[in-house]
Amino acid sequence: MGRVTTRYRVLRLDGGVGAHRPDSLAAEEPLEIRVNGRPLTVTMRTPGDDFDLARGFLVSEGVVSSAADVTSIRYCAGATVGGANTYNVVDLLLDAAVPTPEASLERNFYTTSSCGVCGKASLDAVRTVSRWSVHSDPVRLRASTIVTLPDKLRAAQRVFDRTGGLHAAGLFDANGALSCVREDVGRHNAVDKVIGWAAAQDLLPLSGMTLMVSGRASFELVQKAVMAGIPALAAVSAPSSLAVDLAREMGLTLVGFLRGSTMNVYSGEQRLGSMATEAAVSSAG
Amino acid sequence: MGRVTTRYRVLRLDGGVGAHRPDSLAAEEPLEIRVNGRPLTVTMRTPGDDFDLARGFLVSEGVVSSAADVTSIRYCAGATVGGANTYNVVDLLLDAAVPTPEASLERNFYTTSSCGVCGKASLDAVRTVSRWSVHSDPVRLRASTIVTLPDKLRAAQRVFDRTGGLHAAGLFDANGALSCVREDVGRHNAVDKVIGWAAAQDLLPLSGMTLMVSGRASFELVQKAVMAGIPALAAVSAPSSLAVDLAREMGLTLVGFLRGSTMNVYSGEQRLGSMATEAAVSSAG
Repeated sequence: MGRVTTRYRVLRLDGGVGAHRPDSLAAEEPLEIRVNGRPLTVTMRTPGDDFDLARGFLVSEGVVSSAADVTSIRYCAGATVGGANTYNVVDLLLDAAVPTPEASLERNFYTTSSCGVCGKASLDAVRTVSRWSVHSDPVRLRASTIVTLPDKLRAAQRVFDRTGGLHAAGLFDANGALSCVREDVGRHNAVDKVIGWAAAQDLLPLSGMTLMVSGRASFELVQKAVMAGIPALAAVSAPSSLAVDLAREMGLTLVGFLRGSTMNVYSGEQRLGSMATEAAVSSAG
Repeated sequence: MGRVTTRYRVLRLDGGVGAHRPDSLAAEEPLEIRVNGRPLTVTMRTPGDDFDLARGFLVSEGVVSSAADVTSIRYCAGATVGGANTYNVVDLLLDAAVPTPEASLERNFYTTSSCGVCGKASLDAVRTVSRWSVHSDPVRLRASTIVTLPDKLRAAQRVFDRTGGLHAAGLFDANGALSCVREDVGRHNAVDKVIGWAAAQDLLPLSGMTLMVSGRASFELVQKAVMAGIPALAAVSAPSSLAVDLAREMGLTLVGFLRGSTMNVYSGEQRLGSMATEAAVSSAG
């Protein structure tokens, strides 16, 4: 795991004063994901938890949903530089009952041939492909618990303090207990690593869980939560419009601007217990 | 341009107190980019400056490099929902002399068949495809100018204060004068919009310019700068290892952690004038 960070000599300038010093940076390397020997996609990621990343990617895209759907995962021995394995190509063998995905997989959630390319089509695609109903998840969440998640996530990040360059994703239960945290230069990769970790242990759907992310909440992150059966997504920063639309359509609780004692609830506020709902109703009346 | 932000009713919680209120969020919609009528890629972006985004994407991928390479850009009239144009599909007609790109374009910079998938292969790919030498750009930069860029970028962001959800990219000359600023939910899209704006005016290569971005500096952003002939990239947050590797290989000046009066120079420090270099040499000696 020495490749998670790399040390560089940099020039630090402060006003007119400069000095060379060492600096640790988050590693970034391409990862090619193959399925049944056929290249499917390439993502730029921070090395580490690559099998979880690959498995989680396939969950997010609706290809697999249980541990048994993946027969084996390995680094391709044939992917070498000077005879040494690059550890940048993984191949997943799927169970014979699982349809092999198309190479144009990434288009699945953005466009459908029936109604063109638009936000509505993207929402429809997630609803069509999703295997679980997040809407019906009966979990109750407490605002007083949710506000503790950002600090817990930061505390669990092993690399962040050294590089300042990694996104994090963490999986918490309704009591705020952390199950899994993963980091990556790409926020979507951090989420796929968490979901892949859970899928390998056959924990899907992740009923009752909250996914906490260090940055913004995009359509893609809400999609990943829904595909893993996670009923709540909390983000430190803002969601996008389409992230809120998808969360409302699928019944996912979406929290943004989670900072200090405050948060914005964009969707699924019924899960936030009687206290928050009553307070909201009284002040909105 | 009304689609850049969308208003939502949200529940704002602070401690035990909640209230519903309106909130403006950055819009996110899929954009399908077609070339000569054939679908090439789909990206989730903030609507606005779509033609610049599409043109800049093709510059970043090494497909076009001059204004004349693109004969026309239009929203596809056939992409409709209920008979209304979605404005989410653009088609670029290329000059007959420009080779039509492959649909597997995104793999170009991540992997080459000759030496497998690795960071080195990614660097080699950029060097092979790049049309301009950033290395030989003689521009001199002043640290005292660079530290002013983050505030100038923020001041130029029209949307940021309302949504808190947009990445920004700005193009500055060596005196710190802003040429162009663009925003997007995706940082790569914001950069493509800036580069596409410049390409439409036949300003490539962007010699002597500095590209300033609001977030982190990834391999992909350094790649985009190099492909547009930009000799310097400055970021508010950390670069990745491969971003530094590519910047050093191509001779691009890469500045990270640009905050207040301080910055880290990861590559190309010779452009930062005698003052910084001398100070650095003396304190490193």
